[in-house]
Amino acid sequence: MSQELHDLIAAFARHGDSGDGGVKRLAASSEDRAARDLLATEIRRRGLTLHVDAIGNMFGAAALVPALPEAVIVGSHLDSQPTGGRYDGAYGVLAGLLAVEAVAARATDRPGAARRNLVLANWTKGEGARFQASLTGSSVYAGTFPLETALALADADGTTLGEALTAIGYRGVSDLPFEPVSYVELHVEQGMRLDETGTDIGVVTGAWAARKLSLVFRGEPSHTGPTPMARRRDALRAAARAIDLVYDEVEASGTGAHASAARITTFPNSPNVVPSCVQVWFEFRHKEKAVAIALGDGFLTRTKAALLPLGVSVEIAVDERRGAAMLDADGVALALAVARDLGLSTLAIKTVAGHDALALQKRVPASLIFVPSREGLSHSPKEFTDEIALDKGLDLLTETLWRMVTAIG
Amino acid sequence: MSQELHDLIAAFARHGDSGDGGVKRLAASSEDRAARDLLATEIRRRGLTLHVDAIGNMFGAAALVPALPEAVIVGSHLDSQPTGGRYDGAYGVLAGLLAVEAVAARATDRPGAARRNLVLANWTKGEGARFQASLTGSSVYAGTFPLETALALADADGTTLGEALTAIGYRGVSDLPFEPVSYVELHVEQGMRLDETGTDIGVVTGAWAARKLSLVFRGEPSHTGPTPMARRRDALRAAARAIDLVYDEVEASGTGAHASAARITTFPNSPNVVPSCVQVWFEFRHKEKAVAIALGDGFLTRTKAALLPLGVSVEIAVDERRGAAMLDADGVALALAVARDLGLSTLAIKTVAGHDALALQKRVPASLIFVPSREGLSHSPKEFTDEIALDKGLDLLTETLWRMVTAIG
Repeated sequence: MSQELHDLIAAFARHGDSGDGGVKRLAASSEDRAARDLLATEIRRRGLTLHVDAIGNMFGAAALVPALPEAVIVGSHLDSQPTGGRYDGAYGVLAGLLAVEAVAARATDRPGAARRNLVLANWTKGEGARFQASLTGSSVYAGTFPLETALALADADGTTLGEALTAIGYRGVSDLPFEPVSYVELHVEQGMRLDETGTDIGVVTGAWAARKLSLVFRGEPSHTGPTPMARRRDALRAAARAIDLVYDEVEASGTGAHASAARITTFPNSPNVVPSCVQVWFEFRHKEKAVAIALGDGFLTRTKAALLPLGVSVEIAVDERRGAAMLDADGVALALAVARDLGLSTLAIKTVAGHDALALQKRVPASLIFVPSREGLSHSPKEFTDEIALDKGLDLLTETLWRMVTAIG
Repeated sequence: MSQELHDLIAAFARHGDSGDGGVKRLAASSEDRAARDLLATEIRRRGLTLHVDAIGNMFGAAALVPALPEAVIVGSHLDSQPTGGRYDGAYGVLAGLLAVEAVAARATDRPGAARRNLVLANWTKGEGARFQASLTGSSVYAGTFPLETALALADADGTTLGEALTAIGYRGVSDLPFEPVSYVELHVEQGMRLDETGTDIGVVTGAWAARKLSLVFRGEPSHTGPTPMARRRDALRAAARAIDLVYDEVEASGTGAHASAARITTFPNSPNVVPSCVQVWFEFRHKEKAVAIALGDGFLTRTKAALLPLGVSVEIAVDERRGAAMLDADGVALALAVARDLGLSTLAIKTVAGHDALALQKRVPASLIFVPSREGLSHSPKEFTDEIALDKGLDLLTETLWRMVTAIG
């Protein structure tokens, strides 16, 4: 058993400990700073070179073949949701750290075997919690999200990500001096398939598509007391109908899609004023992009019809359509081969949740490997994976990285 | 026409001008401070004596008979809702200021006629917006709400009312040195009855009863992506159902009651986490307390039934039951008599909205007089009353105060 891994997970869970088994470690918060400081210490302690880039991504580089520019990157994110678990993200970073250390040691024992350098990454803001939009650091690194736009993202208090990173001392200037050739991420599943089937390892072949719709409902402010009921133009009532329709739409479709309405802002949000403006963030997810889009269309049609008698208008503030991303097929084949060699059972699955690997895939062939999570719970303090399962993931990751670093051609 | 009244209303509307015809002048804000400073200037300019008590109530006293302790008080509130109109509260304070000045002038012209002193009041925090609960300053003055509790009320940022009053320089030490014998408040209707019927003056006989229920919905946080739909315990979906049920309950009852759900807080309010805890503030209002209570009971029963399949629990955080308050019958008779003498048409009505007069009535006989408000709109920048209607209210108020101050016995 890798006691070091379990001790590291426990040590990092103390930064942002929510007192109920989970963590609240929002991106660029003081808790995130403490976890980053601890990671920097652990990186240096293992003889790796620390780099922090302009969006705060942290790298711990093992220069196995300093003369060559190519590197394999392994990583995940240390930030969490407000109701985060202790494994989501942190497991991938900490198992990555130990895997890099182990591969570097094997490379030292076998001079000439390594053909690529190896780098651990902690991507800034894997979660979209304090600042909206997720996978920010990895998307900037992949070149699909402009650095300046990312630094200008503002939280609810108007603090930008750039300011927050400066405040915690992680707005860096040290880009990673290697060219990435492949990326691997290890993560807890955030779904039930491995747990239900008793499988050791999930090899992720791709991601579900998603349509993210943010709608603004506009009514009219009036006094909650005397205003006659028939004259109220209640934006919160309209939003409530739409929220309930999300579930109806998905059930009626029979597509097995997932959908949610999880964020809401209400104005003026006073008990004595009929709400005049409400914004709600909706998501529709399915394996196929066309289904996710059609669900959103159906939902919009039903919502508009339901709102007609309420005197409330609706407009679309955001309509983001993410295609069903594919991950690296060679990476899938390699992980399956390694699992077979190690005697681990596997399942090829699609991820519903977003992951930094999906952002990286746009720049470099990327792989994503899951271990089981009890009852599939995540973004919850009840998130849990036992030590044996965590160790199996670490073993698989280490061997996969070794083969990636030493592969010929 | 009282050009002075209309100029004053325009001058005060500049403090917190929301740019759309309305005002946002939250209690103890910098805008409230500016309006208070202007009122203090206007009070002193008219030879009245300024007092500010410990909860920030402002008084402008005309010592018509300094040897006697009794005083008639006239007033309202200068603070507003976030989407406030320029008349709500401010009209009563500013018409009261001019009425006190006019009555004092008549008393000077007719030595010996005045038998009571006369005082203008601007009650702190007539609205329950920035700080929850309304009618705070008048309730403290009436002795029904403890001063220390009022000072400890906190806004969303954790700032207490006491701290906010200190910050704007209106946590005073000068109690009103008179004993109140009656109270009069002039206000725009915040309802449609006067406007619809073309009536000049509403003489308020009492208030509707209200049941204010704040409910907390508790589900479980989980990832909005992979969590299977059937396993989600979505507190926002549960709250949405309850919000929609409010309207159903009222319509089904056929009681003509009013009801609302106007304030909501959601945790963690992240687009990627199924909401685990949502609080909503509901109100049920009717002429009869028993009906308001029964409506709340019916709503709670339906809500609990609707929530059963959702795996979300509900608990009652607040259950405030306000009886149908009566105002001073002698005051009603006097206002009706004055209106008749001035040739103004009248309607006896019940108020649905809360007013400082209702808080004062618990200590001293209180009267409430309405002028029409176009389409009954209030807590809205569209709130509007024309100058002729405002003048009629001022005339009625002045004559009513004169008779109260000079009445024998």
